Amino acid sequence: MSRARAEIAEQPEVVARLLDRQRTAIDALAAEMRRRDPRYAVLAARGTSDNAARYAQHVLGRILSMPVVLATPSLHTLYDAPPGYDDAVVIGVSQSGASPDIVSVVADAARQGALTAALTNAPASPLADAAEHVIDLSAGEERSVAATKTYTASLAAIAALAASGDAALTAEVEGLPAALAGQLALTGDAAHAVRAAADWDRLTVVGRGAHYATAFEAALKIRELAGIVAEPYSPADLLHGPIAAVTADQPLLAIAPAGPTEQSMRELVAAARERGAHVAAIGHDPTLGDPFLELVDVPEWLGPVVAIVPAQLLAVGVAEQRGIDVDAPFGLSKITLTR
Amino acid sequence: MSRARAEIAEQPEVVARLLDRQRTAIDALAAEMRRRDPRYAVLAARGTSDNAARYAQHVLGRILSMPVVLATPSLHTLYDAPPGYDDAVVIGVSQSGASPDIVSVVADAARQGALTAALTNAPASPLADAAEHVIDLSAGEERSVAATKTYTASLAAIAALAASGDAALTAEVEGLPAALAGQLALTGDAAHAVRAAADWDRLTVVGRGAHYATAFEAALKIRELAGIVAEPYSPADLLHGPIAAVTADQPLLAIAPAGPTEQSMRELVAAARERGAHVAAIGHDPTLGDPFLELVDVPEWLGPVVAIVPAQLLAVGVAEQRGIDVDAPFGLSKITLTR
Repeated sequence: MSRARAEIAEQPEVVARLLDRQRTAIDALAAEMRRRDPRYAVLAARGTSDNAARYAQHVLGRILSMPVVLATPSLHTLYDAPPGYDDAVVIGVSQSGASPDIVSVVADAARQGALTAALTNAPASPLADAAEHVIDLSAGEERSVAATKTYTASLAAIAALAASGDAALTAEVEGLPAALAGQLALTGDAAHAVRAAADWDRLTVVGRGAHYATAFEAALKIRELAGIVAEPYSPADLLHGPIAAVTADQPLLAIAPAGPTEQSMRELVAAARERGAHVAAIGHDPTLGDPFLELVDVPEWLGPVVAIVPAQLLAVGVAEQRGIDVDAPFGLSKITLTR
Repeated sequence: MSRARAEIAEQPEVVARLLDRQRTAIDALAAEMRRRDPRYAVLAARGTSDNAARYAQHVLGRILSMPVVLATPSLHTLYDAPPGYDDAVVIGVSQSGASPDIVSVVADAARQGALTAALTNAPASPLADAAEHVIDLSAGEERSVAATKTYTASLAAIAALAASGDAALTAEVEGLPAALAGQLALTGDAAHAVRAAADWDRLTVVGRGAHYATAFEAALKIRELAGIVAEPYSPADLLHGPIAAVTADQPLLAIAPAGPTEQSMRELVAAARERGAHVAAIGHDPTLGDPFLELVDVPEWLGPVVAIVPAQLLAVGVAEQRGIDVDAPFGLSKITLTR
């Protein structure tokens, strides 16, 4: 079995371990956030971790009413003009903890007196050193170039942080390992979707609200692993122009679970079908797409933790079908050291 | 002449009018920002206006040390969970002033007691009604579906807001109309670039720092007008995976002017060439790309106001070459009413 498939299969166990071992660290950060009452959060991240930051933007806003800035590292590394973060909690997300630009943001924030935290799979790393609080993703070494288990672990850590201090929400978070196991069983090898995707060379991926992050991460995985030019959008942003490129026989993947976003996704699917697009879907209503990948039921705000699983399995399946080395596709390397 | 070309040509005059007529309104908002000292800014926008918001994120951070949140409208319109914005200045950007989701963000912020502003070409619009301060882009009716003059007017308004109270920076902003006229003259019809782009069907557009916004807006224009699947990235985000899709004979457009980002763009161009990509560039050093579109000299922080012009002219030129109706490409309509 490829490392990628093994790491996707490990996700229930990884999230269970994270919630078990990092409970104290997560609650300590949450307590400090209540004590210091930062006015907003700053998330600094790249790539897959940036998609986890997109989930944080939704969930910290929704549960803690906390606005989230997605950091602009170039102000720190190229312009020597870091914004003032003294009223913020600044969280760097990086599985390797080694991205110099993410470290710069957190280090500048710490110098300014901000509350800082690292969400990383490398508790002995420059990022962890720069931050006051460290949440260790505890995911075990991730050897596939495509991040999978560190993504779901990051999402679970963010959800646990948002829920900390609320018993009902925390109980919902504790259900994630079982939900992930259920999702893996339900999706299986996604064979019908993999077959249907055999000739995709471009793909538009659409999601909204909690699943804006899912759309971005699904597109990134499908692109990284399978080499398909996959582009993520919210329905609103797609309708502001780029829908022009969604035409006859083009595939579109809708992330459309039940909940507050479903109606808006339904309208988008109808608009795409009117243009002749071929719509696939991940969600609860099988009439929304063909192929259709069904999701297990979880509280809507935790949906992104399970909804990425079918997309991961689709991406790996299509890559294997195309003869791509899924552990090191297209000569990519695991750690990207950008300033 | 198409409306699109006429509106591109109007840009020097539009920006001059904006700076002349809206000076008082811009200075009043800036004075109120100094008085109330908001801890961060929130920008709410979609499509082209969202790219203006990306510029605001750079320039308010760089000049005012002010972190910028890009709003998540779904928390307002679908989840009934607006983040707490009472410590913020909340700016809605919409040429029509009619996007219900953007109006929702500003209306929620006003209810919370935040300082609010509208940046709009429609001073009698729901967005203007919802906001305390109104900056009228004064661009005249924009009739082409692809926004051009309202984009540069939005950028100029944001730059003027950041510069307000600083005589040296304000003098730099006052130079924009002449710089835009110079850029239009220098680019002309971009004929060599239009010819070179004749067979592009996909394009990766890369920019960083101030020009992250330029990369996004250039990609949007090229996609909307010419139907090319153009995707914007920062070099760092591209290197985190999506570079996999940049392979032999694929075109890449580098936004690479002189300044703090040039070295990082130079490295990206080298990496793309190593993969066999065909690199075009907008900047100051003609060795960076072929075709090369030269930029006039402006202070680096104002670069995005002129750097979009060659991309607009390239997009229109390629669209005309392909027989596309540049005023209403692909059946798109001017106002998108998304919730």
